[in-house]
Amino acid sequence: MSFLEEREISQAVIRRLPRYYRYLGELLENGVERISSNDLSRRMKVTASQIRQDLNNFGGFGQQGYGYNVKYLYAEIGKILGLEEDHNIIIIGAGNLGQALANYASFEKRGFILKGIFDVNPRLQGISIRGVPVRMMDELSAFVKENDVAIAALTIPKDKAVDVASMLVENGVRAIWNFAHTDLNLPEHIIVENVHLSESLMQLSYKISRYNEEHQR
Amino acid sequence: MSFLEEREISQAVIRRLPRYYRYLGELLENGVERISSNDLSRRMKVTASQIRQDLNNFGGFGQQGYGYNVKYLYAEIGKILGLEEDHNIIIIGAGNLGQALANYASFEKRGFILKGIFDVNPRLQGISIRGVPVRMMDELSAFVKENDVAIAALTIPKDKAVDVASMLVENGVRAIWNFAHTDLNLPEHIIVENVHLSESLMQLSYKISRYNEEHQR
Repeated sequence: MSFLEEREISQAVIRRLPRYYRYLGELLENGVERISSNDLSRRMKVTASQIRQDLNNFGGFGQQGYGYNVKYLYAEIGKILGLEEDHNIIIIGAGNLGQALANYASFEKRGFILKGIFDVNPRLQGISIRGVPVRMMDELSAFVKENDVAIAALTIPKDKAVDVASMLVENGVRAIWNFAHTDLNLPEHIIVENVHLSESLMQLSYKISRYNEEHQR
Repeated sequence: MSFLEEREISQAVIRRLPRYYRYLGELLENGVERISSNDLSRRMKVTASQIRQDLNNFGGFGQQGYGYNVKYLYAEIGKILGLEEDHNIIIIGAGNLGQALANYASFEKRGFILKGIFDVNPRLQGISIRGVPVRMMDELSAFVKENDVAIAALTIPKDKAVDVASMLVENGVRAIWNFAHTDLNLPEHIIVENVHLSESLMQLSYKISRYNEEHQR
């Protein structure tokens, strides 16, 4: 049975996989070939039993008395996360955040291929970021039709985001990485991953007031 | 009993609060004074019963037959999230991502006051972003001691992040908004909110392969 045939992996495990992937990648870079769940547990500050449980979901890559083969486990988790396939990605909005994403070279290493960057600002036309020219929005729908765009990152103001997302979906984009501070209300089969920075900052602020309150009593 | 004395609010509810806050803020901007849980449910695509349950955690702001008073509920959720207090924030790393955060004016509206921006690149010295000059890293520890810095946003490479975070904490910073792709391993009382963009992209990639797989069968 392949790992991908397993159906009942909980969302919580899936959310933890990228962190395993990151730690295993660092171990690999440092030439570590195998690791016990106890050692991985110390590094990741997760219990060894949680590690064993999580990785058992995928058939269990560990062997008693040997531990985990780092390279194998890294590759298998990469497969589960869909990283062995390339995904073409475009970025809508070439402001600071869009440029930060475009400049983030390790995305490419994991199979996210930057195909295009779009903006409304004519001053940015022709400027290239990592060799990819900034195009104007009126070229977007044709570009999406002609290139096999899997993912569009939206780093545009919220009042534009809903319309642009609908247009992208009409032209075949199936996944949106949404940084705009709004919900997109797209058809159910469209995959949306939201990164709402202001909500993340509010979580931080909540924890600070909780902490202050507890220490003032 | 004040809302803040309630102890047993689940993490899941807390995670949903910023979204309620966003919707209520938009309603306020549009002049809406009151809203029923059914109407809020339609807009937020959450069941009305979940909305009632969530908001009941805070004593229930709704009145039968009237609905929720938008302004009051917005203000109360803001209090719970700690947004009625100001928090001084500094940004370490004045690259694209640091600049994107610095330029994000609505943070200020919610009480996050940008006090300083720091970088190692001498070319950035003296440049100002929204009136705040970029300072060099050798000024950081003195700056943190002299200013009441609650939150430091880290947008620096992972190999620098751990040391910089430790130094910040030694100088009194109690909360880190961490964009570096690493865990910081700080003392337990330090509040850390991680934004790992590459992990968010992997979640997206996971969902794409799951979708493709299901539709190829």
